[in-house]
This record gives sequence, C-alpha cells and structure tokens, in this order.
Amino acid sequence: MERRKLHAQGPVFSRIIAGAWRWNLPEAAVNQLIDASLEQGITTFDHADIYGDHSNEVIFGNILRRNPSLRQKMELVTKCGIKFPSAHRPSSWVKHYDTSREHIFWSVENSLKTLATDRIDLLLIHRPDPLLNPEEVAEAFGLLKQSGKVLHFGVSNFTPAQFEMLQSYISFPLVTNQIEISLASHAPLFDGSLDILMKHRVAPMAWSPLGGGKLIADHAAVFSKASKYTATETQMALAWLLKHPAGIFPVIGTTKPERIAESAHAIDINLDVQDWFEMLKIVQGKEMP
Amino acid sequence: MERRKLHAQGPVFSRIIAGAWRWNLPEAAVNQLIDASLEQGITTFDHADIYGDHSNEVIFGNILRRNPSLRQKMELVTKCGIKFPSAHRPSSWVKHYDTSREHIFWSVENSLKTLATDRIDLLLIHRPDPLLNPEEVAEAFGLLKQSGKVLHFGVSNFTPAQFEMLQSYISFPLVTNQIEISLASHAPLFDGSLDILMKHRVAPMAWSPLGGGKLIADHAAVFSKASKYTATETQMALAWLLKHPAGIFPVIGTTKPERIAESAHAIDINLDVQDWFEMLKIVQGKEMP
Amino acid sequence: MERRKLHAQGPVFSRIIAGAWRWNLPEAAVNQLIDASLEQGITTFDHADIYGDHSNEVIFGNILRRNPSLRQKMELVTKCGIKFPSAHRPSSWVKHYDTSREHIFWSVENSLKTLATDRIDLLLIHRPDPLLNPEEVAEAFGLLKQSGKVLHFGVSNFTPAQFEMLQSYISFPLVTNQIEISLASHAPLFDGSLDILMKHRVAPMAWSPLGGGKLIADHAAVFSKASKYTATETQMALAWLLKHPAGIFPVIGTTKPERIAESAHAIDINLDVQDWFEMLKIVQGKEMP
Repeated sequence: MERRKLHAQGPVFSRIIAGAWRWNLPEAAVNQLIDASLEQGITTFDHADIYGDHSNEVIFGNILRRNPSLRQKMELVTKCGIKFPSAHRPSSWVKHYDTSREHIFWSVENSLKTLATDRIDLLLIHRPDPLLNPEEVAEAFGLLKQSGKVLHFGVSNFTPAQFEMLQSYISFPLVTNQIEISLASHAPLFDGSLDILMKHRVAPMAWSPLGGGKLIADHAAVFSKASKYTATETQMALAWLLKHPAGIFPVIGTTKPERIAESAHAIDINLDVQDWFEMLKIVQGKEMP
Repeated sequence: MERRKLHAQGPVFSRIIAGAWRWNLPEAAVNQLIDASLEQGITTFDHADIYGDHSNEVIFGNILRRNPSLRQKMELVTKCGIKFPSAHRPSSWVKHYDTSREHIFWSVENSLKTLATDRIDLLLIHRPDPLLNPEEVAEAFGLLKQSGKVLHFGVSNFTPAQFEMLQSYISFPLVTNQIEISLASHAPLFDGSLDILMKHRVAPMAWSPLGGGKLIADHAAVFSKASKYTATETQMALAWLLKHPAGIFPVIGTTKPERIAESAHAIDINLDVQDWFEMLKIVQGKEMP
Repeated sequence: MERRKLHAQGPVFSRIIAGAWRWNLPEAAVNQLIDASLEQGITTFDHADIYGDHSNEVIFGNILRRNPSLRQKMELVTKCGIKFPSAHRPSSWVKHYDTSREHIFWSVENSLKTLATDRIDLLLIHRPDPLLNPEEVAEAFGLLKQSGKVLHFGVSNFTPAQFEMLQSYISFPLVTNQIEISLASHAPLFDGSLDILMKHRVAPMAWSPLGGGKLIADHAAVFSKASKYTATETQMALAWLLKHPAGIFPVIGTTKPERIAESAHAIDINLDVQDWFEMLKIVQGKEMP
C-alpha cells in the first residue's frame, strides 16, 4: 500500500483509508475489520465523534484498550463540530454545529478518552459552521497542537472560500479537506473544490468514494472496461479517483473484511487516460467540450 | 450601543446603522428620526446619492445646515455610481453605472455640498459596474483620501471576485461590502460572500436586514422563540444577524422613531446557538446537513 | 490597428486577432485572408493543433514555407491538449484531453514543423483538463520557454479557480485566458472570469466575439444605434467588447477578406457608456439592478 503525505507538513497516511462511519458493530467484527485493514497496509482510520450515534469511537477504543500495541500501527483521524438530538447528547434539541473553542476542547478530550489514545493524528472540523469564529478555531487548534494532543488539523465539506478563510487565520497549514468525490459526485473536479486544494498543495480525502449504490444502479456501463484490468467494479471506481493529480485519499466505508482486501488492490491499477475519460463521459452523459 | 471598527484601519461606527433610503420625508420628520437614532447611540447614517430620487441627501443636509453641531455627533456614509432617468438627472436616458474618476469626483463634491459637510466618513461604490476601471477608481479614491474629503472607502453588492479584484488595485483596505443579508436572504452565509470579507478582516454592512415583509409573511415560525427573549420580531431578526462572527452591521430602514429604539435594543440579545440554528432551519426549510 | 501587451511580461499583439478556426480552405484563400489581415494591421493569428481536423496549421504553414518573410510580420498563437477520434490521430478512440509533459512537447514540435516556424509566440492549454498535473505542465512550459521554442504561455476556457491553481505552479505569468465572451455570452462579465484576469493584470482573448448567428437572430434590437456610429452590426458587437476595461482581444473567425477590414474598423468606435448599457440591457432582457 502506498503511503503518502497529505501536505508537506502533514501526516503520512496510507493512500486508502478505512472509514469507521458504519462500524457500529460488535467488537469482534470491528477487530476483524481493523486486522483486515492493517494486513493490507491500510493503517489510517477515519472516525467522527458522531459516527454510530457517538458509539463507533467507543467500540474502536475498547479494542485499542485491550490491545494497546495496535495504536502504534495506525493513524487516527476524527472530527468534531456536529451536534444533534440523541440520547447520548441530551442537551441538543435541534441539529446544529458547534465549533466554539470550548466544544473543540471538550470533543478532543472526549475522543482521546473514548479512543483510548494520547493523541489524534488528524482532527477535522466536520462541516462548515456558519457561526464558526475563525479566531476561536485558530486559538483552539494552536493550543491543541502545542499540547501534542492533536498532531494535524483539517476540515471536511468546506467550500473553497471557507477553506481559504479559515486557513488565513491559522499559522500552520490545514492538511486536508475531506469531501464527497466519486464517479457519482464528480462536481468537485470542475467547481474549484479540487483546484483550491491543489493550489494549497493539500491532498483531499474522499468520502463515499464509490458513490453509494446509485453509481452501479444508474451507470453500469461505467465499468465496461473492468475485465480489461481484471478488476472489480469497486476497484475501477477507486482507481478512477486515484488517477486524479490532486492525490485523492479515498475513505472506504465497507463493513466486510473481504471488501477491504478488494479495495486495497485498486492501488495497483493504472487506468489508461482514454478509459478514464470514457468513464467520465458515461456518468456525465456527454463527452468533454 | 456597541461601537466597533469596520476594519483595523477603518472607521468606528455604531453597530446598528440608520439607513436613509426611505427618508424621503418632511424635514421635521427626518429631524425626529435623526434625534431618535442619536438618542439610541445610533450615530452612523447610511445615504446614497440616488436615495429618494436624489432628494434624501438634500433633506438631511438641510437639517445639518441649520444645526451644524449635529455633524460632530455622527458618521456619514454615502454611495455613488448609479445613474438612471430622472428629472433631477436629465442626461441619463437608460439606467447605467458610472464609476469613472470624473463621476466619482463630481458625485463626492455634490454629496459634500448637499449634505452640508466637509467630509464623508465612508464612500461606497453602489453596484459592481461591468465597466469599472480599477485603475481609475484607485486613483480617484487615493486623491479623495489625500484631500480629506473622504476618509474611508468600500463597495456595495460586490461579489467576492469583484471585491478582490478592486482591492488588488488599491493601496489601502476597502473597509466594507454592503450587501443584502437577512433571514430571508441567507445565501451570503454559504456562497463565499461573508467568507471573503472575513478573510480580509472586513466587516459587512447588511441592507434590508429584516428581509422586507416577506420574512414575516412566509416564515412566521422563525420568531417562535421571541417571548423567550422578551423580544419583538424585528429584534429577533437583527439579533440573528448580530450573532454571526463576520461582525455584521445591520442598516435599518425604518421611518418610525419608535422602531429605531426597538431596533437598537436588539444589540442586547444574545441568541442561544440552537435557537439560531432553528431559525435558520425554518427559513431554509431543512436542517443543516 | 492598436497594438498592446497581453500582460506586462507578455507578447505585443494586435488588439484584433485573426482566428484560423474555420480557415480550412484552399491555400490561395487562406493567403488572401492573411494578406487582408496584415493590411489592416491584424498581425496576430490564432491557431490550434486541432482546427480543421488538424489541417489548418498545415495549410497556413505551407504558405509560410513558400513565403518565409511573412513570419516576421506576424505573431502566432496555437493550442494543445485536446484529442479526439480522427483519421489524422488514429490512436484516439474517445474525445479526451492530454496535458502530459510528453504530449505538450510532442504537440509543440508538431506545430513548429507544421507551421514552418522556429517559435510559437503564445501556446495555450486548450481546455481545462481534469487530469492536468500542474507540476508536469509547469516543467514543460519552463523547458519550452528556455529553449525559445515557445515565447509565452496561457490557457483557454479555464475557470478562475483553474487559472489560479495552474498559475501557482508556474514561475512566470500566464499571459491570457482565451474564453467565450460576447453580447450573446456575457456571463464572464459577472461570474468572476474577467475579474480574476484583471486581478492578475492579464488580458483575455475572446473567442466567438460576435456570438455566432444567434446574437443577430435573437436580439436585432441590440444594434439599433449602429447608424449613430455609422457602424455595421459586426463593428457594434466588437466595439462593445473593446470598451470593457479588461482589455479584451477579440479573435474574429471570418473567412471573408472584406469582413476582416470591416472588423478592423471596430477599433475606432468608442461607444457611449449609455449605449453600452442599453445593448447589455437588450441581451439580458432587463436593466441592471
């Protein structure tokens, strides 16, 4: 598995990242998924405080607590900033965002404790908060970096303007913007989302890199060259993302160990440029101008 | 009333600004509105050459002419650049913009004379002129600043690209972009309009901060928490804007003295973050993602 | 004919540029078009590798080959990066883009040979390639500049974000973005396309400056002031573009020598600002706000 920096001053991650979004499963099953990932060289795990209604960090952390040596073999990403009504968070009565200094600190302490770790490799602001106070966020990030509790910082689902605004307040680089990109959601290739990251020499992380079920359902033809590459549909979809010069890190969301191995092998596929454009043509319903 | 700088090098304004857009009234009535504003600590008055078909500056200036000491108690904003067919401007036969050096100079001299003042605290280009020549505008602004006739400069209704383009030609900061923002016009929170200003450390001014009548007509539920804050609908709508970290200066447009006092008290309301998001949810018709 | 730099460090071009897009004609006819252009002081010729299914550079080059002294009287622009299925390019089976270092080098060598010249005055990336690797492009541009084979570099049809991204990788300025602008395609005046170029002090080139047939068909009224200026419809449409402060260089696409002379005279028309806005009002179907 290729390992690569998200930014010159950023962390080294496995090019394919295991997403814990749907890992709301018995510990034994999550343990299997962790082992299957590490076996493939997928060492980076993507969390958020809210995944599994605030449970997935807990389950993952219980495994690390029982097997502390695992922590040295992996990098941990988590997110903060979204609050919604939940039995686990009784003070929220409407879905909202909270990127106050106080909540960032609280959320980091909570994730450290829950994940049974002394450091988060990468912390992301989960969603662009219209009430985000960039001076507060900058101060919180600076103190967390200084304390060693969080090593690197980034954002998720930010527009180019939001990314550049927040970056302008922070004295070290944001190292990623985790956004939705896939053959089914290809707008970021054209609307400036990837351009702004390339301008800042920042690699994107891609959530939902397979585009959910709709890609296969709506555009089966996109995979017509799979046999040429002896590849599965999943591998074709990931190889399409990996070909982009922005250096996308796909976050795979599977809950099946065998799909982790399958996804990992996408890294070895180098799509021909014309095949890449043909796949784009199929999902766009027209050729490039 | 809170007083605050629009930009580190900008003027100090009252956080709530009195807009003279609809002050096309008998002098006695305007005098009452001025007194009611000053009484509330609202010391900043927002004009444009064209308001009231070029009459509102005249009415306001007549009051200052009779009572010159008033000028020291207030800051004056005015705008230039729009021309339209009018008995007062017989040379215009189609609505158009004019941001030529010559017209900016003419318009400033005219506003100084009309407003009976020796200085304009803040001059805004009223609309983004597709024929705006940034070198001409930069030269005009520079000479007007040097002469002391205009102390600060900004724009109105500019897109982020237009703002950054013009700023790149001017050696001192533009100190505001006056745009339409309200619960009824909340796109600027998401489309980069506020982000670009925060990036430049520039505070926005908000015109039509109550969203006209349509807000109350279409979204009465947005004010359901008014009683919790012992607030009126107007105060809730202003408090919602004042909460935004961009540091918005609402320009209120009322023609009723009692509404000025009502609006001024919005400054004391600190909306709970969840209430703020609930109000946004109601006007958007959906919760945040 | 006015001559002007595209950028302080860019080439000096004739303000009106002759486009070879449709010059897929017998050599004698192209020779006539070249002579008619030079006679009007139109010394800049706009090519692309693909025009006339890869034939127009060949025809033009044959003329230069027979009359080498012509080359000193003109500036040559060409483009690269688009590939499509064609008998002349049998290796392409789907329309796609190729901005690899290897293809840029190959395409420049091919254009030099085909155009019978030792230098290209300006090379453009024809379309924003989603697979464009900015480091590769920067390296290719740098080496081509050093070798003297290409004197200046730019892009075509790039969005503002794409332009700034690529520029951030190149140590010398991109000197233009050739985009579609006309009375029929006036979005670039408002969507940031021209603003970003003005911010970078880069002049746009305009393709299809007359808007094809649709402008005259849909909006005949736009030319109602032609008689006031003793101008033709073509001249009015070009004068409208030439008035814009971005300093647009229209690329005219005619195949008739007499239309070249007609177009050249547009340079002498200085539209009144109100006439300019009236023309805009007619194509927009509404006056400015």
